[in-house]
Amino acid sequence: MKEIQVGMIGYKFMGKAHSHAYRDLPMFFPDAPAPVMKAICGRDEQGVRQAAKQFGWEHAVTDWRELVNQADIDVVDINAPSDAHKEIAIAAAKAGKHLFCEKPLALTLSDAREMLAAAEAAGVKHMVGFNYRFAPAIRLAKKLIAEGRIGKIHHFRAAFLQDWLVDSAFPLVWRLKKEVAGSGSHGDLGAHLIDLSRYLVGEIDEVVGMSETFVKRRPLAESMAGLSAQGNTDGPMGDVTVDDATSFMARFANGALGSFEASRLAAGHRCTNAFEINGSKGSVRFDFERMNELEVYFTDDADDVQGFRRVLATDPAHDYMDAWWPPGHTIGFEHTFIHEVLELMEAIRDDRQPKPNFADGIKCQEVLEAVDVSIAERRWVAISELRQ
Amino acid sequence: MKEIQVGMIGYKFMGKAHSHAYRDLPMFFPDAPAPVMKAICGRDEQGVRQAAKQFGWEHAVTDWRELVNQADIDVVDINAPSDAHKEIAIAAAKAGKHLFCEKPLALTLSDAREMLAAAEAAGVKHMVGFNYRFAPAIRLAKKLIAEGRIGKIHHFRAAFLQDWLVDSAFPLVWRLKKEVAGSGSHGDLGAHLIDLSRYLVGEIDEVVGMSETFVKRRPLAESMAGLSAQGNTDGPMGDVTVDDATSFMARFANGALGSFEASRLAAGHRCTNAFEINGSKGSVRFDFERMNELEVYFTDDADDVQGFRRVLATDPAHDYMDAWWPPGHTIGFEHTFIHEVLELMEAIRDDRQPKPNFADGIKCQEVLEAVDVSIAERRWVAISELRQ
Amino acid sequence: MKEIQVGMIGYKFMGKAHSHAYRDLPMFFPDAPAPVMKAICGRDEQGVRQAAKQFGWEHAVTDWRELVNQADIDVVDINAPSDAHKEIAIAAAKAGKHLFCEKPLALTLSDAREMLAAAEAAGVKHMVGFNYRFAPAIRLAKKLIAEGRIGKIHHFRAAFLQDWLVDSAFPLVWRLKKEVAGSGSHGDLGAHLIDLSRYLVGEIDEVVGMSETFVKRRPLAESMAGLSAQGNTDGPMGDVTVDDATSFMARFANGALGSFEASRLAAGHRCTNAFEINGSKGSVRFDFERMNELEVYFTDDADDVQGFRRVLATDPAHDYMDAWWPPGHTIGFEHTFIHEVLELMEAIRDDRQPKPNFADGIKCQEVLEAVDVSIAERRWVAISELRQ
Amino acid sequence: MKEIQVGMIGYKFMGKAHSHAYRDLPMFFPDAPAPVMKAICGRDEQGVRQAAKQFGWEHAVTDWRELVNQADIDVVDINAPSDAHKEIAIAAAKAGKHLFCEKPLALTLSDAREMLAAAEAAGVKHMVGFNYRFAPAIRLAKKLIAEGRIGKIHHFRAAFLQDWLVDSAFPLVWRLKKEVAGSGSHGDLGAHLIDLSRYLVGEIDEVVGMSETFVKRRPLAESMAGLSAQGNTDGPMGDVTVDDATSFMARFANGALGSFEASRLAAGHRCTNAFEINGSKGSVRFDFERMNELEVYFTDDADDVQGFRRVLATDPAHDYMDAWWPPGHTIGFEHTFIHEVLELMEAIRDDRQPKPNFADGIKCQEVLEAVDVSIAERRWVAISELRQ
Repeated sequence: MKEIQVGMIGYKFMGKAHSHAYRDLPMFFPDAPAPVMKAICGRDEQGVRQAAKQFGWEHAVTDWRELVNQADIDVVDINAPSDAHKEIAIAAAKAGKHLFCEKPLALTLSDAREMLAAAEAAGVKHMVGFNYRFAPAIRLAKKLIAEGRIGKIHHFRAAFLQDWLVDSAFPLVWRLKKEVAGSGSHGDLGAHLIDLSRYLVGEIDEVVGMSETFVKRRPLAESMAGLSAQGNTDGPMGDVTVDDATSFMARFANGALGSFEASRLAAGHRCTNAFEINGSKGSVRFDFERMNELEVYFTDDADDVQGFRRVLATDPAHDYMDAWWPPGHTIGFEHTFIHEVLELMEAIRDDRQPKPNFADGIKCQEVLEAVDVSIAERRWVAISELRQ
Repeated sequence: MKEIQVGMIGYKFMGKAHSHAYRDLPMFFPDAPAPVMKAICGRDEQGVRQAAKQFGWEHAVTDWRELVNQADIDVVDINAPSDAHKEIAIAAAKAGKHLFCEKPLALTLSDAREMLAAAEAAGVKHMVGFNYRFAPAIRLAKKLIAEGRIGKIHHFRAAFLQDWLVDSAFPLVWRLKKEVAGSGSHGDLGAHLIDLSRYLVGEIDEVVGMSETFVKRRPLAESMAGLSAQGNTDGPMGDVTVDDATSFMARFANGALGSFEASRLAAGHRCTNAFEINGSKGSVRFDFERMNELEVYFTDDADDVQGFRRVLATDPAHDYMDAWWPPGHTIGFEHTFIHEVLELMEAIRDDRQPKPNFADGIKCQEVLEAVDVSIAERRWVAISELRQ
Repeated sequence: MKEIQVGMIGYKFMGKAHSHAYRDLPMFFPDAPAPVMKAICGRDEQGVRQAAKQFGWEHAVTDWRELVNQADIDVVDINAPSDAHKEIAIAAAKAGKHLFCEKPLALTLSDAREMLAAAEAAGVKHMVGFNYRFAPAIRLAKKLIAEGRIGKIHHFRAAFLQDWLVDSAFPLVWRLKKEVAGSGSHGDLGAHLIDLSRYLVGEIDEVVGMSETFVKRRPLAESMAGLSAQGNTDGPMGDVTVDDATSFMARFANGALGSFEASRLAAGHRCTNAFEINGSKGSVRFDFERMNELEVYFTDDADDVQGFRRVLATDPAHDYMDAWWPPGHTIGFEHTFIHEVLELMEAIRDDRQPKPNFADGIKCQEVLEAVDVSIAERRWVAISELRQ
Repeated sequence: MKEIQVGMIGYKFMGKAHSHAYRDLPMFFPDAPAPVMKAICGRDEQGVRQAAKQFGWEHAVTDWRELVNQADIDVVDINAPSDAHKEIAIAAAKAGKHLFCEKPLALTLSDAREMLAAAEAAGVKHMVGFNYRFAPAIRLAKKLIAEGRIGKIHHFRAAFLQDWLVDSAFPLVWRLKKEVAGSGSHGDLGAHLIDLSRYLVGEIDEVVGMSETFVKRRPLAESMAGLSAQGNTDGPMGDVTVDDATSFMARFANGALGSFEASRLAAGHRCTNAFEINGSKGSVRFDFERMNELEVYFTDDADDVQGFRRVLATDPAHDYMDAWWPPGHTIGFEHTFIHEVLELMEAIRDDRQPKPNFADGIKCQEVLEAVDVSIAERRWVAISELRQ
């Protein structure tokens, strides 16, 4: 198998990141099957045509059903708004397409489960877009843990902090409406932390959470591009119906303690996706704003030179880096998607499920929902409650 | 009032730090009343004589009752083990002495309240030893918040992390026995975080916590000095009866969200007492391992140069620093005690209560106990419950 | 003008970086003329065919004369070994092609001057590949300086440090042979520092330098890929004929003092291209290993919050970043080339010389050679001496 | 020998630092001979009396000759202005007193040599005040180098940067007048770097330097305290007759290359005394603004976790730290003097010369003067030239 044909639904932030990944993959990972950028779908005809031209897709369509049923497509890449994931994924699975779906997998746990069932029934591959797993520094953390070099894990603490909502004049964009976005910081940012915690530490047993919307009313949105938007505080206002910030504590099945925080009102943090893990033999820590670095500590270092090392994960010893530039030459955010698409292409070629897949998306969703229940009922909630 | 006569009970880690503070104060703060180091008390006669000589106390005694009733003593400094605080403090208050008591004020909230009542009945000054308030960088944080330069506070997140218990062969010292120490990381380290949160953010309304003892049995201790000790894993073992780590989430009265973590098993952290505060106009963050620095962010900086500033709090604009060295010349851990003792001396001179005082000790104790109840009952606990 | 046709000579490290830049440009900067990747040239037929396929070039050729004279090519991109630059550039200029040449422009100053003369005679555009100018954080430094926000510049200190030659068993690759590479760290790394100093501070008046080859003999090279190679210390050895490290001090025309250091034996530095500039109103500093960041200090900040700010140059206020991802999402090494090619395309479209161009390449070369003379003659050398 | 009696001349910045060291030594290093603070000398009677009282000296005198000849004094501590060092030291030596002299030892090399000759003729101990050698993190650097763990040294680069002269309205204090201060940044700050380079790397063979006075005229000084002062730019002005900044390059006898920079106009640097050393097996780096830390890199770390470690030099494995607080509890600037005085007391007790002593002061002075010659004559100068 030399080429895999892709159709993609959605063309905004994630659509651009995915398009670029397909475009760059063959140049840097020539041994992987090459994705062919067949068709891109969006509701706005002019917009999607422009995107197709700019990003390099062969065709633009406005009806996702058409794309999903196109014979010359092997994979359907779903990065439409979250409320559309389920219907598209199930239809694509029924059409025998492999699925690559952005996170969150769906608005609810039951929807996510239906999606997995459909994929399994159709016997297709399914992947969910937790792209941070594919940062080389995080792969290094995974490797150190897997090899036992950090020992038994005691602590996981993580925060995904942004600050684009600190300004109370920032308008009421769709991401702040529950009916469209599902949730706020929790599902958008917290979901990434949960996935990383599962990837690095293991499954979570129980959680207790708290949540807040600090700015309860905002001016209605006039326009939005990326995370930028303009609002008019003298004009009409509307209610923010999602959380600005959600925190929770967790106990992992292996006995580790976890703390998680997601906020969009953490002034000074453009995109701090940071975690630290402390084990019986060492520690690792990561901050996405310095995504090429992993700080590593070992308890068995000589007693006069113990300290966190700043490892620049750009050496040949680090995953993926042979494909890029010499040591010390860093990569950026978009590279996580290239590595993610590499996993997708290789999994299809090798006839195995990619990682992370829909089962991972569901497990993340379970934790998200357990936190929601915990907040609503002001109590600890076991993940197992959601499986009954 | 030119001099204030001090008697001190206890002569180990805190006793040494306090002694040094009394010794250095007149040299660097000559305008404050000078403490006279009258008498030091300890149970081991040889030990306390040696300490008196080394630290510069006039007399050494072995019976704290004798010291407490000595006519030529104005202030009794209590840094004996926590389980002795109450009895000494009440006796000293009855003898009309001002009180300076190390944290935690007492083993229980009700004991702490009795101590405050005794001090108030006697009309004496009372201070509790939350020394971190006196780091210039933390004073700067306080100033920025008080002046509204950080805006309305949304987030407080703090962790006090140490690693001296990571080694499971570390022995069962007294700090790991509940009957002597009261609690583990929670009361020892978490108490400092709670006090800093109250100092900087305000009162806490409710909490939910979790706790763990990762290493449940340890070799019996053979010796201990400071936080160092030797254990023999082939010898007899005993149960650890305090927490290795305790975390909790909190809601503050002013609407801010808080997260707190204390651990003695965080590999690589010798003494990370760190917090970050995010407000509507900016953020501050601090790490005691770099205690001369405060990182500060302002949302109203010019849009092309927004970023956390590393402020070295050693300028004349920073509290206390005029008394020390030129800008850029840092101070250390022990200086927090000198500034603390300065507050004590000045408060006595000015006939006002020092800050923080026993009322602060009690409020800290309330939060500690609310967390304990929360852990035991697996639920959110309002601080007000403890006042009924 | 919608498209500009490019032919490229060379396909290794720089060839890959340039190819990727042409490939990505239209996706992220759709308003710029799109480069058309017409032909790529290399001496090894199989290698260049494979590169053409992998990188996305239409044709592969083995004779650069053929490419240079191809009618459907507008720009010739020269990233062949340095000793080939001159002949190719002059031929391409004569054929009326615009020139994009990797640094160093040539092996000698007189060669470089001939190249500029040829380009000017032919009336073509000419650009030299000092890619670091195109890092957004460095653009920010330039902007702050240009706007007078740093004041009059007193100090420029810079170091380009790598460590791939620390291991004395690393073999004698071509970069370590003077006849092929021209020089060692000085021309390879120091050239970048000189260009940045000119870009940010201004012209240099005089220099004094020193140089060393710490490891004077190395095993003959068996293979090389990127900066990696294998050597056999039991096999035949050869002489290293270039510098391992070169440092020099400089006086700028505007009165600033400069210090420059380039080394390939600085253990722990994979690719530290770092500088700091101190002016009468502030300072900036940069380290390529954290290329998205610029540290900025202003003397007129409020006196209690003075400190270096860590500015993450990923905001809309920062050059180029609107084309990429939301604030806080970093970019990497390769993006400097995309921005560089953007300048080339826009300059051709606008019928102006791109910056930096061959005149900049010559001025860099003058400083490099003045340092060489200084080292040989153990004295200060004025740049003006090289113009006589 | 239990006690050593000290007389001190000078009571400003260094006088305060030394007094505190004598005062604290017996408390933290009780096994060393205790300094007895006998007499302090200053020209201003009221000032010196106040200092004696505040710092804890038994007597105050205004005539240094009286102090130098006092029978009950064993050591004379000279921290008077530099131009008085020679006369005092020689007189004290003749009186049979041990000598502890602040740096720079004297205004000229020949003066310094006379001082050493006098000390040797008298058979007394002599020490020079290069206090940074006594920072635990720098001791760790020394240890790693001495044990061969950094390998053969290739590079030493150092900068001592301050910014108290950035403001051109800062007045013409005595430190800016050559006749009193001898030199500017070079002798004041550069001297420390030279001593550290000798301590850590070894002797310097030859140097080439440059120097600048950026602000050539300043308002006459009205008052000065520490490094702070007030000037009136509308009043009379005077010439600055010392260097604002001096840089030089050096070759060490062992083949290492050195770069040195001292400036008082480096905006944002309150007191950056920083160096980095790169060797064949690793690197170390230090910045005095974070004086408890040493960054350490080893080439033989496992290939996936190579990186600079931030070692907090507060563990029992680090020099002096057993005397202070538990790991992670930092010390400050003044502690370097306590450790320095410890060396002085122990050397006298053990009847050996302390380190660094006058011979070290002379070697530092040789390098300072060689740089001066180099600047004046615009050429490389061998240190050996100064010995002819």
